[in-house]
Amino acid sequence: MKSVNIGICGLGTVGGGTFNVLRDSAELITARAATQLRVTHVGARHDSSTCDLAGIRVSRDIFEVARDPEVEILVELIGGTTVARELVEAAIIAGKHVVTANKALIAEYGNEIFALAEKHSVQVRYEAAIAGGIPIVKALREGLAANRIEWLAGIINGTGNYILTEMRDRGREFSDALSEAQALGYAEADPAFDVEGTDAAHKLVILASLAFGIPLQFEAVYTEGITELTTQDVGYASELGYIIKHLGIAKQTDEGIELRVHPTLIPDDLLLADVDGVKNAILIEGGAVGPTLYYGAGAGARPTASAVVADVIDLARGVGVGASAPLPALGVAIADLRSLPLIPIEKVKTPWYLRMEVADKPGVLSTVASIFSEQGISIEALIQRAPGEGQTLVSLIVLTNNAPQGSVDIAVRKMEALATINGKVTRIRVEALDG
Amino acid sequence: MKSVNIGICGLGTVGGGTFNVLRDSAELITARAATQLRVTHVGARHDSSTCDLAGIRVSRDIFEVARDPEVEILVELIGGTTVARELVEAAIIAGKHVVTANKALIAEYGNEIFALAEKHSVQVRYEAAIAGGIPIVKALREGLAANRIEWLAGIINGTGNYILTEMRDRGREFSDALSEAQALGYAEADPAFDVEGTDAAHKLVILASLAFGIPLQFEAVYTEGITELTTQDVGYASELGYIIKHLGIAKQTDEGIELRVHPTLIPDDLLLADVDGVKNAILIEGGAVGPTLYYGAGAGARPTASAVVADVIDLARGVGVGASAPLPALGVAIADLRSLPLIPIEKVKTPWYLRMEVADKPGVLSTVASIFSEQGISIEALIQRAPGEGQTLVSLIVLTNNAPQGSVDIAVRKMEALATINGKVTRIRVEALDG
Repeated sequence: MKSVNIGICGLGTVGGGTFNVLRDSAELITARAATQLRVTHVGARHDSSTCDLAGIRVSRDIFEVARDPEVEILVELIGGTTVARELVEAAIIAGKHVVTANKALIAEYGNEIFALAEKHSVQVRYEAAIAGGIPIVKALREGLAANRIEWLAGIINGTGNYILTEMRDRGREFSDALSEAQALGYAEADPAFDVEGTDAAHKLVILASLAFGIPLQFEAVYTEGITELTTQDVGYASELGYIIKHLGIAKQTDEGIELRVHPTLIPDDLLLADVDGVKNAILIEGGAVGPTLYYGAGAGARPTASAVVADVIDLARGVGVGASAPLPALGVAIADLRSLPLIPIEKVKTPWYLRMEVADKPGVLSTVASIFSEQGISIEALIQRAPGEGQTLVSLIVLTNNAPQGSVDIAVRKMEALATINGKVTRIRVEALDG
Repeated sequence: MKSVNIGICGLGTVGGGTFNVLRDSAELITARAATQLRVTHVGARHDSSTCDLAGIRVSRDIFEVARDPEVEILVELIGGTTVARELVEAAIIAGKHVVTANKALIAEYGNEIFALAEKHSVQVRYEAAIAGGIPIVKALREGLAANRIEWLAGIINGTGNYILTEMRDRGREFSDALSEAQALGYAEADPAFDVEGTDAAHKLVILASLAFGIPLQFEAVYTEGITELTTQDVGYASELGYIIKHLGIAKQTDEGIELRVHPTLIPDDLLLADVDGVKNAILIEGGAVGPTLYYGAGAGARPTASAVVADVIDLARGVGVGASAPLPALGVAIADLRSLPLIPIEKVKTPWYLRMEVADKPGVLSTVASIFSEQGISIEALIQRAPGEGQTLVSLIVLTNNAPQGSVDIAVRKMEALATINGKVTRIRVEALDG
């Protein structure tokens, strides 16, 4: 039986998980790959208490792994974008295939890395970079290859989804739910990466490139976090038949591409609305297949290892490998990526949910209505709550028809300037996601 | 640019859909495959009104396509298992790759066909045979290849799921919902294939082989249809927090393999419980990744064509092709398939839902309880409905703990023999599907 030599760089959570999945399931994996997958070299600053490295070459300098002529596949699990990029490029130049779980690296430097890999006739695989163990890269690159992808919408940050689920199911405020997520080890001590949407933006930009055959353009993603969401909005959304999810959305229209991460009201009868807790799911609208959805664990040592090892097995099997027919990293060769215009977020139209606290006085409603009208925004539904005993402010909830963000933001600013409106006006996009 | 010549046999719904997806999306598909996909030969008894065959060789004898030395990939979409098998084997022997949507052919003759393909170093791809456009074969064969699959449970017959959804949402009886499905073109005029579970059994046996690396064994699947289900049971299930779905279930336990298709009560908070109408979904429990779910259209011309064309693109890209590293059709080479024992259905343990109409008399309950006790079946919950005005029969609903079907069926026969129990006792399996 043939064998393939694997070098693993990084023995943290995912590195340790990968090492152990390869060892624990060696028999099964050998049968599937028809190849012995041997970890021959590990690069890590420290040994791992969970990995038995006996008989394996261990280097403190990870670049030793990239220089090791015996290593055929280098698995990059050190994270970050500086050293990781150098390491991956060194491996490629040395003629090794690369497997990585590093979403930031791919989102920010993927164009350069994939071009280099094409030049050196090696593969860079990154299934684990998006939605953990869900084989979504393979689905887009291969399974849905016959489809013009119209749009996709994903719950691609588990921490954020956990927080939103807690806010809805237990009426917790954002900060409480975040503390709980941190206590459970879901969120980082500095949770900005999760709750501000950067992590989701990294994943979205990769999904969009795979879906539409466009270059990676991380800097172009519009990103809005969930830090401003209140249980009040979660509750009103629910009354209106919606669930608020933090979605990464990529759309292809006749005008161009939309790339955006933001809280979104979606109908509560969608399957995507039922994806709770730390789980991830991606809904994809394909021209031929219609909607398909992919659900599973978006993080964690073993789910992420599942994706890393799947990539390794693919390479060991020779799937898409070889100079005659390499599988393109983004679904088409780098030279064939299309330069499609990006639609500025101000021009992106959807329906909107707005909430404001208004004085319970005659004329307020007509003033608000006329501000919408001036901006060409039509109102789909309007709910005014009767004031509580002794209260002078009432909540006004407005659902609009399709309107561009630019017009909505002008209307919001005008409303916030009114003496009869108290504080900020909340505005959240609504998406039907119905194809 | 290189090109590949495709022969399509069969221009019915799926054949026409495939032809048109290849033509309509030619530019996009060419870029993704880095290859021109040319349909050079069509074998069909009649022309199709939806396909423009100008410039394409057309044969009335489909075997002409298998004999055509220019054809490199033969797409079999004629259906059936007799002529289709001859055609596919002729193509394999002639050195052509084969793509098929024919679940009956693969389920019943796949072992022989795949062995022949291995011998001739060609690929047989069948993504479209299961769950239409959902790339589930690719997910199991490649995306989840690092996982020992513990079990999978699928809604893999859209007609049956449509009927169950109508029964639940509109309180329709089975026969009404079936008529509606027929009127909408979902069910065949002879719907037995759908509602008796044969279609689901075909798909299940293929999924199980991919999941566990075992030979295809269609005759071993236990199959129970949905024809006996009543709205009463759908209603009681709902009160108890369950939804009834017609599932194909494959499990790998220490004792062996379970292969079964039957109505099943599943908790209503599962994502699978929310899969309604004609849609399909497969929930898979992997050892490393945990649960993942795949959802989409399970039938229809264009969704099925999406899967057929994805297979063609894979072959054109050279994914898993070539004598040095062929992708095994069932995830492992035919010689490496494991012969695992099948657990007879009588021994398969799950909780059960039972409903019986009993006389409203003292002592009935204790008689029923003692019959369960004799069979070693413990009762988890028991609901007795107060009789209506002037009624002498009451409904008794029992939820049991884990019990083998053999014991439950003995208990059912004993209860049906009681004078105090009217008519048949309904028994339906319960599955928690919680990993």
